[in-house]
Amino acid sequence: MACITLTTDFGTGDWFVGTMKGVVLNLAPRTTVVDLTHDVAPGDIRAGAFALAASHAFFPRGTIHLAVVDPGVGSRRQAIAVRTSNYFFVGPDNGVLSWSLAKEKIKAIHALENQNFFLPQVSSTFHGRDVFAPVAARLSRGLPIHKLGPRLTDFVRLEWPQPRRSRRHIEGEILYIDRFGNAITNVSSDILNGLDGEPAILLKGRRLRISAFYQAVPPGRPVGVIGSSGFLEIAVNGGSAAKVLGLRVRMAVEVRCA
Amino acid sequence: MACITLTTDFGTGDWFVGTMKGVVLNLAPRTTVVDLTHDVAPGDIRAGAFALAASHAFFPRGTIHLAVVDPGVGSRRQAIAVRTSNYFFVGPDNGVLSWSLAKEKIKAIHALENQNFFLPQVSSTFHGRDVFAPVAARLSRGLPIHKLGPRLTDFVRLEWPQPRRSRRHIEGEILYIDRFGNAITNVSSDILNGLDGEPAILLKGRRLRISAFYQAVPPGRPVGVIGSSGFLEIAVNGGSAAKVLGLRVRMAVEVRCA
Amino acid sequence: MACITLTTDFGTGDWFVGTMKGVVLNLAPRTTVVDLTHDVAPGDIRAGAFALAASHAFFPRGTIHLAVVDPGVGSRRQAIAVRTSNYFFVGPDNGVLSWSLAKEKIKAIHALENQNFFLPQVSSTFHGRDVFAPVAARLSRGLPIHKLGPRLTDFVRLEWPQPRRSRRHIEGEILYIDRFGNAITNVSSDILNGLDGEPAILLKGRRLRISAFYQAVPPGRPVGVIGSSGFLEIAVNGGSAAKVLGLRVRMAVEVRCA
Repeated sequence: MACITLTTDFGTGDWFVGTMKGVVLNLAPRTTVVDLTHDVAPGDIRAGAFALAASHAFFPRGTIHLAVVDPGVGSRRQAIAVRTSNYFFVGPDNGVLSWSLAKEKIKAIHALENQNFFLPQVSSTFHGRDVFAPVAARLSRGLPIHKLGPRLTDFVRLEWPQPRRSRRHIEGEILYIDRFGNAITNVSSDILNGLDGEPAILLKGRRLRISAFYQAVPPGRPVGVIGSSGFLEIAVNGGSAAKVLGLRVRMAVEVRCA
Repeated sequence: MACITLTTDFGTGDWFVGTMKGVVLNLAPRTTVVDLTHDVAPGDIRAGAFALAASHAFFPRGTIHLAVVDPGVGSRRQAIAVRTSNYFFVGPDNGVLSWSLAKEKIKAIHALENQNFFLPQVSSTFHGRDVFAPVAARLSRGLPIHKLGPRLTDFVRLEWPQPRRSRRHIEGEILYIDRFGNAITNVSSDILNGLDGEPAILLKGRRLRISAFYQAVPPGRPVGVIGSSGFLEIAVNGGSAAKVLGLRVRMAVEVRCA
Repeated sequence: MACITLTTDFGTGDWFVGTMKGVVLNLAPRTTVVDLTHDVAPGDIRAGAFALAASHAFFPRGTIHLAVVDPGVGSRRQAIAVRTSNYFFVGPDNGVLSWSLAKEKIKAIHALENQNFFLPQVSSTFHGRDVFAPVAARLSRGLPIHKLGPRLTDFVRLEWPQPRRSRRHIEGEILYIDRFGNAITNVSSDILNGLDGEPAILLKGRRLRISAFYQAVPPGRPVGVIGSSGFLEIAVNGGSAAKVLGLRVRMAVEVRCA
């Protein structure tokens, strides 16, 4: 049973996502479509890339991951499909796929140029429906990826903000703020584990301990935890760290050993 | 594999939509249910009608389109099912289906009166669960539409706001504002193409060019595009036209040739 | 065809729910997953319990109802699976399942302790993905519940706020405010029907009639109705009772016979 995941900034308030599913059902009635999220902030390629990278590996082998955060739709940006050892990835070639692809073994990259696999009429503003959904549906039914268009040698990579580190000190940043107000940083558990000493977070004049779970501190108090994506998160027990501490994406985060 | 689409104003914050899906699964376990949108503004029949009309034709033949924007639930408004050449439509007879039906060849219209096909207990406030979901589920399993109730000769039509036009001038209005803040007008590409000259949008003292895609203007600047539903849209490259220009549904839009 | 329902406070803005579905699909590709709601306010166990109790019985026999409103994730709260005559229930043992279980005939309660049925790596913050989704997937494929861990004799019950009542008078409270601004009270239709006389709602110095449907009063006016969950609701015809009347959860509601 084939599966397609959808990651977009289309929201769910209009008919955009439902229409894409109609297109898929039309071409591949037995394919299961799963919403990863449609609430990426409009045009926020980095947030879409992070969402997909945090979740794609939990899906069955062969899943087609379709990400459409595409502020350049209708202009000359390329559209691509990528086959890796485990999955297919489809989307605009603007970096939205790149943080996922960095974790995968790339097998083939193709431009989406063969219009036989698009809808008969392609609008200039909704390639999710007219280009990407039909291509993903066809891949889910076994269309060989090389039929989609010419082979490419590379894809656009979004820069990953690598933390600066020494043996007892890390300078990172906030990558993503989730629904609970937890601030996910670019400090991975691997980097943390490489430190020489007991680390704590320094943030806006506070020193936050790093613990195994939110309840390690009293309700309303901030704490660092290794989150479910494998990165250091700043949380508030029973509250929103983003609100309580005034956190925003790209804000600097310092970790220092005592 | 049968398919039911759902267009409602129920939101997704409560259990209403999920419960409707439970009812469908109970009666038709192999039917696929697709959310078109549940975020139609409460009671906004026009917005629901527009969402359905913009998307219903992208679904497989035989799909049952169920729309429940039903401010009159529990009162004496009628509920109907309509068979067209391609689809079934089910909902309250208040116009929410009518913009879609205007594009379809009508085969049969029936009132939903046969209570054998409802849930055993029908509440006065949630016909989505108690009447519409079980009827749609049964249609998806092949129940002949005439079993649902007496044949009707017509349905309630929502007025379509037709633009006023001359050879070099169109007076239209804004029909819908989408998640990106794009304002979709009632000026179709056909009407635009019928003009005698190079048209531009006149709006609040500005003159907006009409282009093939958003990036035809610098970031932050407004532009007209033919959107994915086939209507002229007012957009802002990388921003929200609704916010930047202060646009609202039913606002007048003028198109004039230079 | 097995079915799993999801009730969480994860929202749909991040990748959390989609990832849980990936885990289910991986282990049980033919299971249908239905979203009940993911917009329970963060940590609001009572709201999650009410949503599930209002809808679980509309699903096919054998459905696995998974509820993850879990402010204590990672701490020592227990996780449970419960088999009833009709369904399975899975979630943290914090009361979120208890209002549903109160309506069911309990057959077996087991702690989730056998880590063979979890994901290989269990994070401390996302048991929805690492513990609950794989357990629900396995139950949907027929895993006997006793394999999950030791049998328990009871589960945590959330207190149900029972209204105080006499023959002509009820003192209740608001349990839940829905998307339309309708305020659902703890006054069931059974209790109302047991009154000796014609009841009306007394609220903030107003007297509201109780009617069969919203349109019993003019647009913009408040009215009491027996809602679709079988409880007295305070509504405003075509508007939001919560906004118009300033209603909030846990506010007192009085019903008195004339």
